[in-house]
Amino acid sequence: MNLWGGVDFGGTNIKLGLVTRQGRVISQTTLLTRQHPDPDTFVQGVASTLRSLARTQRAHLLAVGVGAPGLIDAERGRIHQLVNVPGGWRGIPLARLMEQTLGCPCAVDNDVNVVALGEWSFGAGRGTKHSVYVTLGTGVGGALVINGRLVRGMIGSAGEIGHTSIALTGPRCACGRRGCLEAFVSTQAILRRARRAIREGASVLRRLVAREGRLTPEVVARAAAAGDRLACQIWREVGVSLGRGIANVINLLNPERIIIGGGVANAWRFFAPSLHATLSVYAFEAPLRAVRVVRAQLNDRAGIIGGACLAWERE
Amino acid sequence: MNLWGGVDFGGTNIKLGLVTRQGRVISQTTLLTRQHPDPDTFVQGVASTLRSLARTQRAHLLAVGVGAPGLIDAERGRIHQLVNVPGGWRGIPLARLMEQTLGCPCAVDNDVNVVALGEWSFGAGRGTKHSVYVTLGTGVGGALVINGRLVRGMIGSAGEIGHTSIALTGPRCACGRRGCLEAFVSTQAILRRARRAIREGASVLRRLVAREGRLTPEVVARAAAAGDRLACQIWREVGVSLGRGIANVINLLNPERIIIGGGVANAWRFFAPSLHATLSVYAFEAPLRAVRVVRAQLNDRAGIIGGACLAWERE
Repeated sequence: MNLWGGVDFGGTNIKLGLVTRQGRVISQTTLLTRQHPDPDTFVQGVASTLRSLARTQRAHLLAVGVGAPGLIDAERGRIHQLVNVPGGWRGIPLARLMEQTLGCPCAVDNDVNVVALGEWSFGAGRGTKHSVYVTLGTGVGGALVINGRLVRGMIGSAGEIGHTSIALTGPRCACGRRGCLEAFVSTQAILRRARRAIREGASVLRRLVAREGRLTPEVVARAAAAGDRLACQIWREVGVSLGRGIANVINLLNPERIIIGGGVANAWRFFAPSLHATLSVYAFEAPLRAVRVVRAQLNDRAGIIGGACLAWERE
Repeated sequence: MNLWGGVDFGGTNIKLGLVTRQGRVISQTTLLTRQHPDPDTFVQGVASTLRSLARTQRAHLLAVGVGAPGLIDAERGRIHQLVNVPGGWRGIPLARLMEQTLGCPCAVDNDVNVVALGEWSFGAGRGTKHSVYVTLGTGVGGALVINGRLVRGMIGSAGEIGHTSIALTGPRCACGRRGCLEAFVSTQAILRRARRAIREGASVLRRLVAREGRLTPEVVARAAAAGDRLACQIWREVGVSLGRGIANVINLLNPERIIIGGGVANAWRFFAPSLHATLSVYAFEAPLRAVRVVRAQLNDRAGIIGGACLAWERE
């Protein structure tokens, strides 16, 4: 059996798997990033793990694709720099190093691009010509598939919808600017609002936080599910801000599908109504009729499946 | 000699010309739109004029491309609807009608797309992979060339940078919304500010308006050239707003070139400094280093040359 390897290189875990041409994950496992923090141990660990997975499946590993968090020159398979990963990852020709060790073609791209490629090929974007992927979490990232091709831009930084501004001013973003979409809808933005809501008397939310011992977007979502008025209001505001950013993308790109992924997307049912209401005001009518804004479908497997899709580009 | 026809269909004039494969306009002329207001008279007038131009040049007309102001299905060569052109232009298969009359392949697209194609092929975007064209005038339009292809989107409405919002609120846009880039930098926005400046004592501007008997962006530019402080301030504000809109495009698309055209771009030297200063704050450093923001080069010939480029797509 021929299989392709997908590698999802995150700040905490390295998820690896073998994928069929039909986008099915046949087998997968996880390594700890802190045990493979530098290029050398990463390549050795990933290569031996993929080889052993392939051996168990009696499969032939044809090519491998890696999604990594940072600025990547996908054409050359080179990592410019990573974020949230320690030590030694500047200017690393990762694709070449992996090819030398694995003996098959390898490709590397930004993790958001890779997940978008997976969703476009086998998830919520399947069959579309123009898809935009937006990931909501600690950061707000994005990736564009236009005319059936991933848009990387001149240096591989295309897709940064989180750092398009929706307002002339606003809370300070992680990037230092004001007005960025990310500063309105990221995990931090949600938690900042939640802390204020607790001070202002969001009783269900306060009780949940006391019980859990921590405040997360998931706790804010459960408070909303339990009817906490201020928690619901937080999600409404997330939907409105997200709607302003996505309306801009709809007017600019006239896409067929917009796919919302990332951890915060689990609160979809709480922010989707105000998101759609905002789109109906700020997106043009004709392109709005042509687009569907939906949740991502592949969840945890997106990075592995997308990695395999990236590998196909290199065959 | 083989030549291609380019037709620039505007609200006042229909400009037509014959273009070489090297993008040189060999001969051109103008028809009045009000004398060719409906599909029938348009096709007859354009076809006989192009034929007679070709005869004079002893040239063979290989294909023709038309840029028209409105929503166009370029793939089918069909006009959904036009703006600023009277009567009878809904659902017109213009490419087919022209092919039947002219006997050669014809293509139709939105006028901004066509001008962008001209600038990308033979003007300020020549040799680039990813270019964004922005036109400043009564409206603010845009068009995207990504991976060397015009991005039309699902229904042909891609590129509407004028209706991406840069602010949560703002002056009311021609489209009815608030916050659109267009509402900050269009001709109307400039004139509204100029009238206020005159009330507030912009003496040079007031004198120029009295002498000319009218207020136009060009008059505001001449007032700025003569040192009118409030006129200079208007252009600075145009540059800042435009910078916010273009920074979003740089962060989202990571293009190689951004080309500013349209009548208001003639005031380039008055708004370019604040435009570039704003970009250096709101665009990410790496993609900002990778892009050049420049003036359009083809001016009045852009629509004719772009029309010929569009025709080549159909050969």
